[in-house]
Amino acid sequence: MSIRNLAIQIAYDGADFHGWQIQPSQTTIQGLLQSILSRLEGTNVTIQGSGRTDAGVHALAQVASFKLTNPIPIANLPKAINDLLPESIRVITAQEVPADFHARHSATAKTYEYRIHRGQTCSPFKSRYAYALACPLDETSMATATRHFVGTHDFRALTAAGGEEHQSTVRTIYSSEIHRNSDLLTYRVRGNGFLYHMVRNIVGTLIEVGRGNLTPDDLPKLLADKDRGAAGPTAPPQGLFLISVEYENLHIQTVHG
Amino acid sequence: MSIRNLAIQIAYDGADFHGWQIQPSQTTIQGLLQSILSRLEGTNVTIQGSGRTDAGVHALAQVASFKLTNPIPIANLPKAINDLLPESIRVITAQEVPADFHARHSATAKTYEYRIHRGQTCSPFKSRYAYALACPLDETSMATATRHFVGTHDFRALTAAGGEEHQSTVRTIYSSEIHRNSDLLTYRVRGNGFLYHMVRNIVGTLIEVGRGNLTPDDLPKLLADKDRGAAGPTAPPQGLFLISVEYENLHIQTVHG
Repeated sequence: MSIRNLAIQIAYDGADFHGWQIQPSQTTIQGLLQSILSRLEGTNVTIQGSGRTDAGVHALAQVASFKLTNPIPIANLPKAINDLLPESIRVITAQEVPADFHARHSATAKTYEYRIHRGQTCSPFKSRYAYALACPLDETSMATATRHFVGTHDFRALTAAGGEEHQSTVRTIYSSEIHRNSDLLTYRVRGNGFLYHMVRNIVGTLIEVGRGNLTPDDLPKLLADKDRGAAGPTAPPQGLFLISVEYENLHIQTVHG
Repeated sequence: MSIRNLAIQIAYDGADFHGWQIQPSQTTIQGLLQSILSRLEGTNVTIQGSGRTDAGVHALAQVASFKLTNPIPIANLPKAINDLLPESIRVITAQEVPADFHARHSATAKTYEYRIHRGQTCSPFKSRYAYALACPLDETSMATATRHFVGTHDFRALTAAGGEEHQSTVRTIYSSEIHRNSDLLTYRVRGNGFLYHMVRNIVGTLIEVGRGNLTPDDLPKLLADKDRGAAGPTAPPQGLFLISVEYENLHIQTVHG
């Protein structure tokens, strides 16, 4: 039997799940996928995601990889898995990848989006997928502040205590922008990697700038001081979407939603 | 103290609720609203909806009326109620109405929409708000069939046994149309009233036409025979939206979403 290394793209509405990572007695996206693939394979299959997403965080195109000996045609794989998944998780694409491909180690960049709903009343069809924030915000200052995150920085001030102690907290951000479209204020950030809670802490800090509790000029010192207490609170999970994961020498089809 | 008669428009994502109507030990939209208004009033308030929606059915603009002595300015009422509601229910508008206005008895027409998602993979951000149906459907036959519901008919064949026995099952349908827009096949129906499960049974019957198990020409006899067993099954609730309720001599602001 030949073993194939496979990669899938997965979209999920994270509201009903305890995040990506498998946990005993919790419903997680990795846990559901592993149990379905193990059933298909007849033995335990381990599936590697490009990274964890927290409880309540959504994904348009999470990427995961795993080895399979089952000879199911690749074109049939998404439907075979989707038929056994809840409708709030969908495998969008599947492809065979080189033997050394690993969804997390091989990733070269990731893009996240954080959606803030502005205005008094947020539609119940949107509040599951955005942070409804009615207070006044200086969006021009927020836009100025976003630029201070671009480049290679130590992001210790913007990660939760939950991260591993010996791990480097230096990351490179390639782009960091905020856009207003109708009622939706969207922050989009692309970088080579993100620490635990990093995007939600950046957004919580941008909101403090929007409220006037911090100025854009405070941000370089805030990063340099590495003091988590000086940054804003962690923005709630429902506004966060993992948009795409990029790999060198491998085209993973981009999915928009 | 003067008593005001008030009407509110309410939007809700029905997925997490046991329908509109108050029920002991179930979370319902009417139940939540009554408990909040009773708290505001300091005594029991009864709230009348334009009609029930079933568990899982959504509303863009359900209308409800109630009497209030609390002198809260009408402009502050939506926020006062919304602050105590889950985000999946929102009061969109509030207005004072004549003393004899009753959300159900005064209603002259209602519009419902039923959304069917076509294609292999339904996004997890859409499946909560549509019926995902991948099988082939003859949409031209379905469009022809929709016209047979227009006019005044006895709709006994298209209502569930749950309805009241002595009630008339005659209703007038003003318009009945199906439209395709990208992956979404939408049935929209406007009438002077709807029986229990009527819209979902119409849609289940249209789907049988789409599958070729019924023809459009079967529909007049199906209605005339009043045989529930000859019609299609009840389509699932997540595709159904109460779009608007109309009243004579009263402008209830239309809300689109």
